[in-house]
Amino acid sequence: MKITVCTLFPEYFDRFVTTSIIKRAIDAGKIEFNCVDYRTFTTDKHHHVDDTPCGGGAGMVLMCQPIIDCLKAIRSENSLVVMLTPQGQPFHQSTAHQLAKVDHLILLCGHYEGFDERIRSYVDKEVSLGDFVLTGGEPAAMVISDAIIRLVDGVILSDSHEDDSFENGLLEYPQYTRPVEYDGLKVPEVLLSGHHENIRKWRLKESLRKTLHQRPDLLAKRSLNREEAQLMEEIKQEDEKK
Amino acid sequence: MKITVCTLFPEYFDRFVTTSIIKRAIDAGKIEFNCVDYRTFTTDKHHHVDDTPCGGGAGMVLMCQPIIDCLKAIRSENSLVVMLTPQGQPFHQSTAHQLAKVDHLILLCGHYEGFDERIRSYVDKEVSLGDFVLTGGEPAAMVISDAIIRLVDGVILSDSHEDDSFENGLLEYPQYTRPVEYDGLKVPEVLLSGHHENIRKWRLKESLRKTLHQRPDLLAKRSLNREEAQLMEEIKQEDEKK
Repeated sequence: MKITVCTLFPEYFDRFVTTSIIKRAIDAGKIEFNCVDYRTFTTDKHHHVDDTPCGGGAGMVLMCQPIIDCLKAIRSENSLVVMLTPQGQPFHQSTAHQLAKVDHLILLCGHYEGFDERIRSYVDKEVSLGDFVLTGGEPAAMVISDAIIRLVDGVILSDSHEDDSFENGLLEYPQYTRPVEYDGLKVPEVLLSGHHENIRKWRLKESLRKTLHQRPDLLAKRSLNREEAQLMEEIKQEDEKK
Repeated sequence: MKITVCTLFPEYFDRFVTTSIIKRAIDAGKIEFNCVDYRTFTTDKHHHVDDTPCGGGAGMVLMCQPIIDCLKAIRSENSLVVMLTPQGQPFHQSTAHQLAKVDHLILLCGHYEGFDERIRSYVDKEVSLGDFVLTGGEPAAMVISDAIIRLVDGVILSDSHEDDSFENGLLEYPQYTRPVEYDGLKVPEVLLSGHHENIRKWRLKESLRKTLHQRPDLLAKRSLNREEAQLMEEIKQEDEKK
């Protein structure tokens, strides 16, 4: 899989490609990652990429010509062009799975007040990282690339994914590591028991409990199987006793 | 305002602080930004920060000692400690506004399978960037820092904020800049008219239209004033004619 980020600040990604899991994925040839600078495609001698908004208002708007010429130069049949914009569809784990299947993903980063509206006719999809506003698309491109790259085959062990938050519609269960006691706080005994079935059940119950208490909206989107429903009943009874 | 990011990869932020608006905010003394490496707080000679999960399973879990000692060393009365985790409350523009008022914001980045659960007793707030999973908290810390820094007084012109997507519960209206015609696509005439009231009304209507078509969920969270309700009526009639 190849990811190309189109940006005014290619240097922003210098460390993204040299750190931890992303570096390993690139070194192992699982991922190709490059940045393209819109300024390379400007045709005026001052390399302008933006201009004031038609109709007035604060800020600067990215112009059609450099952005569209950039896209035309780098896209191919196997490319999917995704514009990063607060006006797009919110990015979820399911979007990460979808995009991880694309041969060549092109991420367009805006900056300032955003893109000239006409640029939208040249993109395949508009994605928003969430309901908040950034100075530019660059940190969003980094997050989205990270979420995608870790799903590409062979980048991390596939059994690491199974219990990830959101993969099964629940938040992940609590994790503990040694020491067994720290500052008076203990690891739950069941985790030290070596009893696999009890551990599995405890983790499922705590995963349900965490989701119920912190993100009940996630439970509304998901049905419970028989075991889960029974554990949920126990959790609610425990809550009532408190 | 000061932001401290606690991480295993402080170099990840090298370019964040030297690029565009964030660099200007730091240079102008509006923001102080630093990174602290958990490894500095390890007590064993191999500088271990993680260990295998109690009860088994894939991945590694960040240990209590280095993380909690790091926190104890850097937090003060004016600090707010925010753990970045998929299990936290989702980050929104309103979270950015809240956090932009904090004197000293400490962002804890996880990595691998996440934090030992006991570390949660030492944090003030858990925040999730969205319903997806990352290899670590670093890109999330970058996004959250960016969203906050641009809201700090004096970092960008305050009239740039007013029309941002989400600030008034709507997506931003379409923006255009010169040329007036590009590849057969024209700037809407009203934006070239110089008639301020018509431009304001057109922008409000297009903002409503975009929100209705792309994010109807946002409209459900917001009531319309009289002018907006009338424009929305027009939009729906126009949609029916199509």
